[in-house]
Amino acid sequence: MIKVNKNYNKLPGNYLFSEISKKISEYQKQNPDKKIIRLGIGDVTKPLTPKVIEALQSAIQEMSAKETFKGYGPEQGYSFLREMIAENDFTSRNINISADEIFVSTGAKEDTANFQELFDNDIKIAIPDPVYPVYVDSNVMAGRSGEYVNGRYTNFVYLECNKENDFRPDLPKEPVDLIYLCFPNNPTGQTATKEELEKWVLYAKKNKALILFDAAYEAFIKDSSIPKSIYEIEGAKEVAVEFRSLSKTAGFTGTRLSYTIIPKELMIWDDAGNQYELNKLWNRRQTTKFNGTAYLIQKGAGAIFTKEGKKEITSIIDYYLENAKIIKDGLSTLGIESTGGINSPYIWLKTPGNLTSWEFFHKLLNEIQVVGTPGSGFGKCGEGYFRLSAFGERENVIEAVKRISNLK
Amino acid sequence: MIKVNKNYNKLPGNYLFSEISKKISEYQKQNPDKKIIRLGIGDVTKPLTPKVIEALQSAIQEMSAKETFKGYGPEQGYSFLREMIAENDFTSRNINISADEIFVSTGAKEDTANFQELFDNDIKIAIPDPVYPVYVDSNVMAGRSGEYVNGRYTNFVYLECNKENDFRPDLPKEPVDLIYLCFPNNPTGQTATKEELEKWVLYAKKNKALILFDAAYEAFIKDSSIPKSIYEIEGAKEVAVEFRSLSKTAGFTGTRLSYTIIPKELMIWDDAGNQYELNKLWNRRQTTKFNGTAYLIQKGAGAIFTKEGKKEITSIIDYYLENAKIIKDGLSTLGIESTGGINSPYIWLKTPGNLTSWEFFHKLLNEIQVVGTPGSGFGKCGEGYFRLSAFGERENVIEAVKRISNLK
Repeated sequence: MIKVNKNYNKLPGNYLFSEISKKISEYQKQNPDKKIIRLGIGDVTKPLTPKVIEALQSAIQEMSAKETFKGYGPEQGYSFLREMIAENDFTSRNINISADEIFVSTGAKEDTANFQELFDNDIKIAIPDPVYPVYVDSNVMAGRSGEYVNGRYTNFVYLECNKENDFRPDLPKEPVDLIYLCFPNNPTGQTATKEELEKWVLYAKKNKALILFDAAYEAFIKDSSIPKSIYEIEGAKEVAVEFRSLSKTAGFTGTRLSYTIIPKELMIWDDAGNQYELNKLWNRRQTTKFNGTAYLIQKGAGAIFTKEGKKEITSIIDYYLENAKIIKDGLSTLGIESTGGINSPYIWLKTPGNLTSWEFFHKLLNEIQVVGTPGSGFGKCGEGYFRLSAFGERENVIEAVKRISNLK
Repeated sequence: MIKVNKNYNKLPGNYLFSEISKKISEYQKQNPDKKIIRLGIGDVTKPLTPKVIEALQSAIQEMSAKETFKGYGPEQGYSFLREMIAENDFTSRNINISADEIFVSTGAKEDTANFQELFDNDIKIAIPDPVYPVYVDSNVMAGRSGEYVNGRYTNFVYLECNKENDFRPDLPKEPVDLIYLCFPNNPTGQTATKEELEKWVLYAKKNKALILFDAAYEAFIKDSSIPKSIYEIEGAKEVAVEFRSLSKTAGFTGTRLSYTIIPKELMIWDDAGNQYELNKLWNRRQTTKFNGTAYLIQKGAGAIFTKEGKKEITSIIDYYLENAKIIKDGLSTLGIESTGGINSPYIWLKTPGNLTSWEFFHKLLNEIQVVGTPGSGFGKCGEGYFRLSAFGERENVIEAVKRISNLK
């Protein structure tokens, strides 16, 4: 008899964003005349930039002629792109990362979800709360969670992020083996200082732990004192994997390209104390279960590392950051506390009137047709909080703030 | 201490095709003047067809304007594409498959590798030998294999395919829960008759087993008596998942699009006998760990279901099938036995002179610069066999056959 992976039973509901999107569809169906403003899922609205479009068009030309057609490419990504990434994201910032430490993929969601496959099932995992649900759910599916009791999994170590610690997690009190960190943070919008990251790198070294560092929002960091990469911290290459994405950086949410950095000095161990190179393990995983990102998408991605391409995407990031400021200032005027919104596209706010996150979600949707994401969907500590995203057209953002200020 | 997934230690070598590609690079480096003909990895050489190119171009236009830009799409694929697939691959052939039973993805390699995640770790798995290595390796990584002893994993049930059974596996002698089947077969090129598939569907029903049916090469079936889909068999919707791909069908090896069919009546169970809908489980998996296939690739894929698009891809498939015939006839003239090459792009041949598969690989590479795939890379029963693929330009295929006929 074919039997189910019983860990799926431990997932309390649907994937958060699927659930939200269902609720919006239902509302829109019943209220076809209402104009909904979506500041929820964190999806970009600005089109691909001219340089990316040009590169895509040229790649399509290549794919249309026998002489230049590309079939299977390297599972790790084409060298041209890996080298551009190494040079522009790292070498030029005095970080020594080489092309063969970079694995191109179709999304940071996919890579952060799949990466746990490389580890033993008995490792102890530290997960911030609130957190991007993919880290949690992928480990639940793999059987590392224990039971779900009162909104928490018994085997995970939760790193609580709240007002008291300014939404920056404290070091765990018990030893952990794997640590998920995300800065600028999704959902809280909080960033990490250099000292903050140094603390984690030191911890990981001491405990032979590994940090999975999600830097999907690094492009939004404008303050030069805030690290864009964990590799700006000395020694991080021995203890951290970094995930990057073009989704928000270059409007690739529907075009799909990301990359994961695995320095060669990163080691993990077996019970007998034998060492394994993480880079080689991920390479084995990717060559076995993945067949590379579409050639034309990789060509399109390459365009953002050109001089003009960089200018284009910077101007879009600046646009979204201005949106963030408008939202944050608007909330502040209304006396609503928030974090994030600076060096980050997310604004994390305390729900007014002590509403639960979902109550506030429904209130916004039903009364003023503004969609955000309930904080409790990101974890227990998110209860009573709400995430707004700065992705959207300016007029909609202004209108959303106006609607919020008229909320009864 | 962060510990490794020790199942990776059970994999005896590198992923087969990575290994071959390394050997070719090394040879070419040492012999830069030699012209290598590649009939190995099964990669297409014909460019994307005009209708696909047109659709891609139009999608890029959409992505360049705010009004038509597409961000995150449904993880399951866009409705327009799922509906086209349902209509063209199934409804029009009197098979009742609906759009929400179809999940669009970036590759059949990815989907066939990931699908095992839905099952309990203790299931008994039947795997043909020889076989596409992804089915084996993905289950080894998940911990279902037992130990690797004499070229076989102790926990798998091997379905031997050899001359005696005409390379069509017999039913297993012990009960199994999950069965991987691939027709037209990779690597043997063998096809399955309707009776053959009926036998498997009946077996699955009796044993509450599930069939994972890889139909990546269905487009090569010209004989109308051979099923293109397992759903042509009555009752198959209750026991089989089907994987399809545009890689070979439409030259998408470097463009990446596939789809997986999971009928809603497909159930699996837990120890207590509770039923679970497989369609819902895969939906939970995909929404959690995948963020959809790039919009523009989905638009490109849609073009192959138009009247003109179909004509275009049919003519390419016919071209490759003619290549297959040339190879098969050439081998036959030389007295080399082979299977496949009809209704299939693969030719599976007995190595001449009792050479091992790898000996023959090196002989072909070193003496006549023709690359194929060693049969032993697909399993123990593949030893002494060799796979040639019909993907390639006509002149190269003719030249390869000529070189083989001059082989000492």
